[in-house]
Amino acid sequence: MHLKENILNQFISPQGTNKELVEKKLQEITTQLLDFLSNAANKPTYPKFQYFGTQHFEIPTEPNSDNQIGLRLQELFDFNMNPANPKYIGHMDSIPTLWSIIGDYVASAMNNNQLSLEMSPILTQLEYSITRQFATLFGFPNSAGGVMLSGGSLSNLQALIVARNEKLNLNNGNISALQKEPVIFTSEHSHSSIQKIGMILGIGADNVIKIKADENSKMDVVHLEQQVEEQKKLGKIPFSVVATAGTTVSGNIDPLDDINRIAKENNLWFHIDAIYGGAVIFSEKYKHLMNGIDNADSISFNPQKWLYVAKTCSMVLFSDFQNMIENFRISAPYMKEQEDFINLGEINIQGTKYAEIVKLWLSLLGLGKKGIQELIDFSFEMTEKFISEIKKREYLKLVSKPELNLICFRGEPNYIQETEFDEWNKNLQNHLINETDFFISLPRYKDDLWLRTVLLNPFLTEEYIDSLFKEIDIFDEKYKNQT
Amino acid sequence: MHLKENILNQFISPQGTNKELVEKKLQEITTQLLDFLSNAANKPTYPKFQYFGTQHFEIPTEPNSDNQIGLRLQELFDFNMNPANPKYIGHMDSIPTLWSIIGDYVASAMNNNQLSLEMSPILTQLEYSITRQFATLFGFPNSAGGVMLSGGSLSNLQALIVARNEKLNLNNGNISALQKEPVIFTSEHSHSSIQKIGMILGIGADNVIKIKADENSKMDVVHLEQQVEEQKKLGKIPFSVVATAGTTVSGNIDPLDDINRIAKENNLWFHIDAIYGGAVIFSEKYKHLMNGIDNADSISFNPQKWLYVAKTCSMVLFSDFQNMIENFRISAPYMKEQEDFINLGEINIQGTKYAEIVKLWLSLLGLGKKGIQELIDFSFEMTEKFISEIKKREYLKLVSKPELNLICFRGEPNYIQETEFDEWNKNLQNHLINETDFFISLPRYKDDLWLRTVLLNPFLTEEYIDSLFKEIDIFDEKYKNQT
Repeated sequence: MHLKENILNQFISPQGTNKELVEKKLQEITTQLLDFLSNAANKPTYPKFQYFGTQHFEIPTEPNSDNQIGLRLQELFDFNMNPANPKYIGHMDSIPTLWSIIGDYVASAMNNNQLSLEMSPILTQLEYSITRQFATLFGFPNSAGGVMLSGGSLSNLQALIVARNEKLNLNNGNISALQKEPVIFTSEHSHSSIQKIGMILGIGADNVIKIKADENSKMDVVHLEQQVEEQKKLGKIPFSVVATAGTTVSGNIDPLDDINRIAKENNLWFHIDAIYGGAVIFSEKYKHLMNGIDNADSISFNPQKWLYVAKTCSMVLFSDFQNMIENFRISAPYMKEQEDFINLGEINIQGTKYAEIVKLWLSLLGLGKKGIQELIDFSFEMTEKFISEIKKREYLKLVSKPELNLICFRGEPNYIQETEFDEWNKNLQNHLINETDFFISLPRYKDDLWLRTVLLNPFLTEEYIDSLFKEIDIFDEKYKNQT
Repeated sequence: MHLKENILNQFISPQGTNKELVEKKLQEITTQLLDFLSNAANKPTYPKFQYFGTQHFEIPTEPNSDNQIGLRLQELFDFNMNPANPKYIGHMDSIPTLWSIIGDYVASAMNNNQLSLEMSPILTQLEYSITRQFATLFGFPNSAGGVMLSGGSLSNLQALIVARNEKLNLNNGNISALQKEPVIFTSEHSHSSIQKIGMILGIGADNVIKIKADENSKMDVVHLEQQVEEQKKLGKIPFSVVATAGTTVSGNIDPLDDINRIAKENNLWFHIDAIYGGAVIFSEKYKHLMNGIDNADSISFNPQKWLYVAKTCSMVLFSDFQNMIENFRISAPYMKEQEDFINLGEINIQGTKYAEIVKLWLSLLGLGKKGIQELIDFSFEMTEKFISEIKKREYLKLVSKPELNLICFRGEPNYIQETEFDEWNKNLQNHLINETDFFISLPRYKDDLWLRTVLLNPFLTEEYIDSLFKEIDIFDEKYKNQT
């Protein structure tokens, strides 16, 4: 009554019986992985899309050999998105730190469970400690603390669950008993997850009230004040306002102090989605951009973005941790408790939870606060260079004044009609992908198509930026001649 | 305007400039990891708990050297939970397949984003294909499909969001407009995530109505029918019933056919939490245990448990995928669309999402359906052996008739009072951990303390089980003599 060896060899024997075999396999994978990653600058940023069809990925009946699996793995490498190429500057997705890759490698091998202290004794402590330190970095008081979650949407969700329960006295109660509809305010440029959360929470996506933004894509606080009054008049219950510190498309930061004042005057939970921009707290030079963030009731922040930790890695921090627990906790009765530690699964949307803290911890050790500061400052330097190139060209226009390392711009050349601008920009994106391998994204924003870059890659240089703008000029010249 | 080399070396250079350095580091980590994992059978299952204190994990200012980080990593290895030891039979946490560890290693290095097709062109297709195949394995029709999520609580959550929106016509509407309170029915032994979901959804944890279970921990359908009527009389709106196919503590399976009949008669969404037990569909001998599962509207299933994939790895499947989309989708306007593929972030609680599909895919290739069948059947064989040992001992009692590889039992020796049983079992757990290194969990269930085992480890043998029961006998003998 033993399993056959070919099945047991699918696991790392805890008795060491297949150690050599496993070591060989891991070394082969490392070689294969490095051949791919160390050559990323020469691989397409945006691979030619191939439709494989459902049959192509059929779950096999018989076990595959290691060689066969190596080929399937190579297929994933060959047709995946390649954010490691310095010419990939189109999204918030970046090359991850080596230590965060190692973090996933070892966390997965340990297979501990962040559900409870019993199932992850040291890692639960690590998560408690690191989230608390981040809370302090954001200027939160000693009462603060947080939890980690698998992505920013979940962090925003957990914050707004607590906001709803606290402000509507709703812990175990239900919304249908309320006579009025609760509403959340957020900028028209906030992340789509806020609307999704309105739907999830049962208040309805339409009760996420969109506040207008000014010409720099920042929330218009006059409109916010008007809307708070307006919604009250309509018989609704305003209970939360969500500010964005680094909007998805243009990276702009809502006026945190003004929003805080309005929140306090109207008894609104003040949540700040600093998922992207929060990283600047590591820079002496730029942390002032987050001034006022310490007044929030909760903050979402993603190390998976500008801290270069492999995704997913997100956290939500609460100014009053105990209050969060009271408004959220659902006990798991079959779990052992230990003084000082509440099982993370009881105060987290997720129950069983991956130890994402491992990759964050190793990455923080590798870079130190100073290393992160250098990376952030470098991004700003590259952004300055990029913006100066835009400003040199009359036919290019910025959507707003960039505040972080996101730049949203487009061509509006005077030799074509306004109605043709979208087409011009779409063609430019295609030209860049097909002819130069630069990948810039093309969001629809304020009804128009824009070019969007996120300057994250540490291997980016001024030379890359120069060559990009040279290509844009060539495209523009060609377009003009064809018009 | 370049970053310094020590910062750039925190990343794998896409130009290959630090390939040798990185290779060396990865080989060192592999050695360190294998020293730990290949010796897991000799390391404590449940390490002595050490309180480290917050200061111990301070984020450093200066970058740490690789050697320093190696020591911090070793600390995580030394004080973590050790589910790879075959004597760890206390929870649903298991040793992961080698290919699933590799899956996390490479997925993290690729750092693709399951948010959109644009950011994970091949991996989005892979997720669509594999979830669809699982839907077919569960007997769902061609209209079915699913999404992957980071853990079972999220899978149950997504199912019940859709249930609520569909049955209460609530897509973008809000619950407060309802005149009546919606309610969900589930067994008293269902997972605590269902209550948490009641809280999250805004219907309130108290509106998750607990249905009594029979002596075998299976939902009592007579009580379910009574409660549906009762809640209607109380002016509430029953909209969903959640069956459990493999309860957390004892692994019992609710009567799926009877619950389906009651669901259909009362227009309830029928969700099955098959997070644990669903794995038996891979076994010709045991898949009949899931008979009737194809009648569900939605099923949650976790490859991270009995399919031995490193956590987290979960999915939720919908009988009518298009209906799920209509009831859930929140568009992300800045994303490109491609025919045939909806960006996964728009139909998923999570937005940015880790490519957990990679480890599942590699693991499925390595084992094949037949390999999984062998693992499942092996677990059942070990369970039979374990139960036969319990039955040989008059002082041991089962909490219910085991249906899967979970066994919940306890000592009720006749030489002590009933009121002392809890103490006896608690002492036995301690004895086993401290003297023999066997780790069995000790849940509170039906008001009493029980011993719970989950026989998952492929390196478990009859000899281990024999030695465990020998130890239990020794403990019992000693206890008797001291009484």
